[in-house]
Amino acid sequence: MKKIIKLGLLGSGTVGTGVVRVLNENKEDIVQKIGADIEIKKILVRDVNKKREYLEGIELTDKPESILNDPDIDIVVEVMGGKQPALDYMLKAMESGKHVVTANKDVVAAHGKELFAMAEAHNTALMFEASVGGGIPIITPLKHCLTANKITEIMGILNGTTNYMLTKMTQDGCDYDSILKEAQAKGYAEANPAADVGGLDAARKAAILASIAFNTRVSLDDVSVEGITNIEPADIQYATQLGYSIKLLAIARDYGEKGINVRVHPVFLPKEHPLSNVNDVFNAIFIKGNAIGEAMFYGRGAGSLPTASAVMADIVEISRNLVNDTGNLVGCTCYKELKICPVEETEDCYYVRLRVNDESGVLGQIATAFGQCNISMKSVIQTRMVGNFAEIVAVTHITENKKIKAALNLLQALPVVDEISSVLRVENA
Amino acid sequence: MKKIIKLGLLGSGTVGTGVVRVLNENKEDIVQKIGADIEIKKILVRDVNKKREYLEGIELTDKPESILNDPDIDIVVEVMGGKQPALDYMLKAMESGKHVVTANKDVVAAHGKELFAMAEAHNTALMFEASVGGGIPIITPLKHCLTANKITEIMGILNGTTNYMLTKMTQDGCDYDSILKEAQAKGYAEANPAADVGGLDAARKAAILASIAFNTRVSLDDVSVEGITNIEPADIQYATQLGYSIKLLAIARDYGEKGINVRVHPVFLPKEHPLSNVNDVFNAIFIKGNAIGEAMFYGRGAGSLPTASAVMADIVEISRNLVNDTGNLVGCTCYKELKICPVEETEDCYYVRLRVNDESGVLGQIATAFGQCNISMKSVIQTRMVGNFAEIVAVTHITENKKIKAALNLLQALPVVDEISSVLRVENA
Repeated sequence: MKKIIKLGLLGSGTVGTGVVRVLNENKEDIVQKIGADIEIKKILVRDVNKKREYLEGIELTDKPESILNDPDIDIVVEVMGGKQPALDYMLKAMESGKHVVTANKDVVAAHGKELFAMAEAHNTALMFEASVGGGIPIITPLKHCLTANKITEIMGILNGTTNYMLTKMTQDGCDYDSILKEAQAKGYAEANPAADVGGLDAARKAAILASIAFNTRVSLDDVSVEGITNIEPADIQYATQLGYSIKLLAIARDYGEKGINVRVHPVFLPKEHPLSNVNDVFNAIFIKGNAIGEAMFYGRGAGSLPTASAVMADIVEISRNLVNDTGNLVGCTCYKELKICPVEETEDCYYVRLRVNDESGVLGQIATAFGQCNISMKSVIQTRMVGNFAEIVAVTHITENKKIKAALNLLQALPVVDEISSVLRVENA
Repeated sequence: MKKIIKLGLLGSGTVGTGVVRVLNENKEDIVQKIGADIEIKKILVRDVNKKREYLEGIELTDKPESILNDPDIDIVVEVMGGKQPALDYMLKAMESGKHVVTANKDVVAAHGKELFAMAEAHNTALMFEASVGGGIPIITPLKHCLTANKITEIMGILNGTTNYMLTKMTQDGCDYDSILKEAQAKGYAEANPAADVGGLDAARKAAILASIAFNTRVSLDDVSVEGITNIEPADIQYATQLGYSIKLLAIARDYGEKGINVRVHPVFLPKEHPLSNVNDVFNAIFIKGNAIGEAMFYGRGAGSLPTASAVMADIVEISRNLVNDTGNLVGCTCYKELKICPVEETEDCYYVRLRVNDESGVLGQIATAFGQCNISMKSVIQTRMVGNFAEIVAVTHITENKKIKAALNLLQALPVVDEISSVLRVENA
């Protein structure tokens, strides 16, 4: 029986210092729960001479081998972020029999298969609760608590930056550019916000969640991605008027014979939907399963301590196994090979905002174009004048994405149409 | 290594048939996840001759010993409900080395200590995810995912019946009696609704959650309980006007030196609070921890399939351990003995509705009475006439419960006060 669990941390940034703090503050209880002592033996840093808060008394090193080859270290905690060298370090750690906990969505979304193969080959644990939803428990609930369900759908608000921006655009009526600047000033958005606002960050997390929920490997390349950069105040206003919030959602759906589809895009979400009230930087994951019905997990999707909460939970789990000399019971859960349903075959309701010539018969021409593509309409309304043009908002009943694409081509070709300003999916129109 | 896991079910009611259905429908995946076959060998029923849906092909018995003494049965699944004979059956099952999964909040809340002692003595698992929040994963998240946190507060909507009633009273303006009848007609409330509307059902679940969150045994007797029977339409209306929802909450708080307090009562909850938007029969548990910050778990708190989802998750967990020949890693987590903070010493803001004589100076007398008890007021407003009386609504700043009780005594004794109509706590007044 192990008397003391020793950790090696790769990285001392936001998450790394959070892990040190959480372990320091709650150590007495954590030790009780593990049934053994636990300590951070070494931390990999860029500059060992830099003075750091919270890290006093811990050996700092700038040599990864000093951690990866230390036979004394049981668990390597990868909190450095980025694909490389994080991937190599994790692989090496497992190769030398160490268990790995990571908060790294980039690596898990892109190299999950490779990592799990290494974990299996060396009988080590690979845990990554913090890679999705920050502190929100979602990987363990999916792998354990909901394991008896056939999951049919996951909808998640997985990016705090964009949720903050959409919330402010809705509440304060700001436009995209000014709210982005505010979010950057508050530290909610990075100097280069592309991965957040473009949907890539959410897409990585969506790939990880879908892999677990559907028990099949979903990579980042399988996820179709659309960000919030094209959302205009007019769209927010129409959403509000119609009883919706606009949210950037990661959606993973089981389309049965057609396969599964995983995507990230903004959605008109009914105000009554539980995700619709998830505001500011909060994240939430809404799940449908054939036994549980609907469930939602809500909390802080980022931040030093919340993310460290998830990292430490994984560390405790592995430590319990070490103390009790039990192996890793749940490894890779991707035992199926489901096909990916192309986004063209997915079905949704759509909101289309158009700028058209202000002349009689336009509404009819618009409606006819949708009709020619066999799209049934919920409403086509001329809403207001924008300069010399009239604005039209159309909402469809449920239809295939490829039909919408065909309709947009028809509309674009109509002489009366000046611009297709916006196309967004609508949940439960 | 086990090749097949055999279950014995005690009970074939709502939850029992749910377990059979979920296992039947999702068996292929469940077998894959366990790594062994799994089957229900026997079910304890009252009348073996009664024809039952979903139970075909399974041996029915009316003799509990036939399950409890069957050496072939690995896991006993107690889904009969009620304290006895469920408690005896569970104890006997563990005594003969069987693992136990239960959905029984009554037994776990009242006899947790006894049950866990038996589990430890015979090295068996005792799992009870379904006893709180139906399908919502909450026991496992607390024991595992949030284990590195010091939990400071839990607030839960743990009873679907009362949440449905309060939702309808708010949305449709119905009074208590008519909505209770409607809830009974829809099957949301039982013929004898006392345990639901009186708060006892939620109190049992609160005791279980508090025990796990604070790592100390909390019994039903430790929970102070107040139901929704005194909520009048006027209270709902004032709550709405002031920007609150009224919710029946189970609250478990850490008051530090003073101990922990666990209670169930209706609360004015700000509309912006995540629990405030949990409507109808849905349940949710909101948790504060020193690392995670805030998190919420939402879903169906009752029902055949959601509850079976939780029961089956526990079964899968135990089965994985059986297949891998590993013991039960997390048993009783009550390794502390914290004292209970008396409700008199808890601190909250309060809403007090009074019927008073319609004469000058009354408002001053009311405010003075609060002041004499050192209670700072947020507002004291005369709102409307009720017959010949004036109605006054007072909202306090945060104050000790014993001060409120003293103030109510003073108010009651004032000649101008006809009736103290309502006293409710206000979250974040």
